[in-house]
Amino acid sequence: MMLGALDIGGTKTLVGLVREDGSVAASIQFPTDTQHCLAHLALCAQRLKELAEQQGLRVADLAGVGATVPGIVDEDRSVLVHCAYPDWNGRPVKQYLQELFPGCLVAIENDVNACAIAELKFGKTGYHDFLWVTVSTGVGGAVVCGGKLIRGQGSAGEFGHIKVEYETPCLCPSCGGMGCLEAHGSGKALQTMFAQTLQKDTLLRKALEEQNLSADGKGCEVLALQGYPGALHCMEELGKYLGRGLGAAINVLNPQAVILGGEVAHSLPLLYNSIMETFGRCVHRNLLPVELLQTKLGYQAALVGAAALLLEDS
Amino acid sequence: MMLGALDIGGTKTLVGLVREDGSVAASIQFPTDTQHCLAHLALCAQRLKELAEQQGLRVADLAGVGATVPGIVDEDRSVLVHCAYPDWNGRPVKQYLQELFPGCLVAIENDVNACAIAELKFGKTGYHDFLWVTVSTGVGGAVVCGGKLIRGQGSAGEFGHIKVEYETPCLCPSCGGMGCLEAHGSGKALQTMFAQTLQKDTLLRKALEEQNLSADGKGCEVLALQGYPGALHCMEELGKYLGRGLGAAINVLNPQAVILGGEVAHSLPLLYNSIMETFGRCVHRNLLPVELLQTKLGYQAALVGAAALLLEDS
Repeated sequence: MMLGALDIGGTKTLVGLVREDGSVAASIQFPTDTQHCLAHLALCAQRLKELAEQQGLRVADLAGVGATVPGIVDEDRSVLVHCAYPDWNGRPVKQYLQELFPGCLVAIENDVNACAIAELKFGKTGYHDFLWVTVSTGVGGAVVCGGKLIRGQGSAGEFGHIKVEYETPCLCPSCGGMGCLEAHGSGKALQTMFAQTLQKDTLLRKALEEQNLSADGKGCEVLALQGYPGALHCMEELGKYLGRGLGAAINVLNPQAVILGGEVAHSLPLLYNSIMETFGRCVHRNLLPVELLQTKLGYQAALVGAAALLLEDS
Repeated sequence: MMLGALDIGGTKTLVGLVREDGSVAASIQFPTDTQHCLAHLALCAQRLKELAEQQGLRVADLAGVGATVPGIVDEDRSVLVHCAYPDWNGRPVKQYLQELFPGCLVAIENDVNACAIAELKFGKTGYHDFLWVTVSTGVGGAVVCGGKLIRGQGSAGEFGHIKVEYETPCLCPSCGGMGCLEAHGSGKALQTMFAQTLQKDTLLRKALEEQNLSADGKGCEVLALQGYPGALHCMEELGKYLGRGLGAAINVLNPQAVILGGEVAHSLPLLYNSIMETFGRCVHRNLLPVELLQTKLGYQAALVGAAALLLEDS
């Protein structure tokens, strides 16, 4: 059985063929056309057809086509109801895909939910109660309870907007609120914190320049791994805020595990102690210990998740 | 159909007969014997038998016996695994009840979860995604998603231990942590805040003495309703902290509603604006509005919940 998968992100799109064990048979990447929704979906369909043909398959041979979309879908998982790109906002993406793939099983979902479903179906952790957290530029989340994705009224898992700082809150670039986890515990927040630290810390600034590193999260990670206190402090602060936000979610749900994806998740060894110490302070002891791990699905988590949508019990 | 119900709380026990529409046909209240688990359960059985006989029924005619217990039950809902009373702690309460009611359907659950199930089965709100919050001396919570109680690993719904104050946190009397919702937004917290306000506020102290009110949450509510600024400020602070804690849970779950039970819930008209304003600041706008209401089940919520356990889809 082969599954068609479209991971349509805000900047890039991955189109792929995924086997029913979650392994990727073939994939291709190209920029997302944020200006033209219909044209981009038609291009995705064309690329998927080409990939299938390279594997000696027709699109009609696929068990279905699953797609992640760059925003929030409605309760029926049919319409993209919140999207930053005007030409995509409010579009009935599922219907368009159905027209592009007549007779095929079609499903859409936002990317973070799709990652959680991928983890459930293909992650091999055995967890059925967990929080999925994507930490990259922002912070996205998804909730799995009893082996099912929890959607609430459509937008459950907004861990990024749990408040983690009341006294000296930073502005959240995404929602305009103050003190959100996304404002204090995201890749963007790390970059800001690192830039501020560099201004005061000449030792750190010298190391950055000598090693020709960029003043972003990646540069901070490299210097933290070399033991520079200023960089280590930034990672600790990031971990503290992630611990506060995710700790609140643990108190609500008492999961088995918290699974991190996204770019910043690669820094988990540097964040682990700080997050776990914060859980120790912020989570009721009856709910501890809780596992904290990085996903093994890698950067194709959402692509594999798009395929996993077709295997989900509804 | 008549359901047997035991609501065994930390201080008092209610034994009752509940109709399948959730109405209470008969009930009796007596103190909980926290020192002797087995003897108390036997007394409950005796009282239920007497109540049934008064209605012309035998225990064997009941559709089952549901019980709430004063602590946390295990995943199988069989053993009371965490209880403040040593003689009750670790007891296989379900098995004992089964021996006391041979051949009957028997179920146990902690009281807050039972309240949420009662609200789901008998509350007539139509909500299938909601947070239940008991605000009395402490703060207890339960989560209902898609018409099912979410238990996590057994202890989901610990809203009382979500952190709501990081800068000037109060000690949580129940878990020993700092800055918990229970330390800032409970009946006990209100009493402490009111006592501190009384020390500084002579106008308020004079009114309290003249009206012969007690220096507790009830006294604060009475004076707040009369417009005394010091008492109103205490209620606002309580609402702010409830809004912070419950706001975090809303970001996680995107429910339709938050339903308050417990003594402090009677003060909801005084707390409503403060809680809702805090939701406005602390909850992502995509997840608003959310309904905030007091349960209509009254002080027998847990008794009715004990009966509702017998009607729950497992």
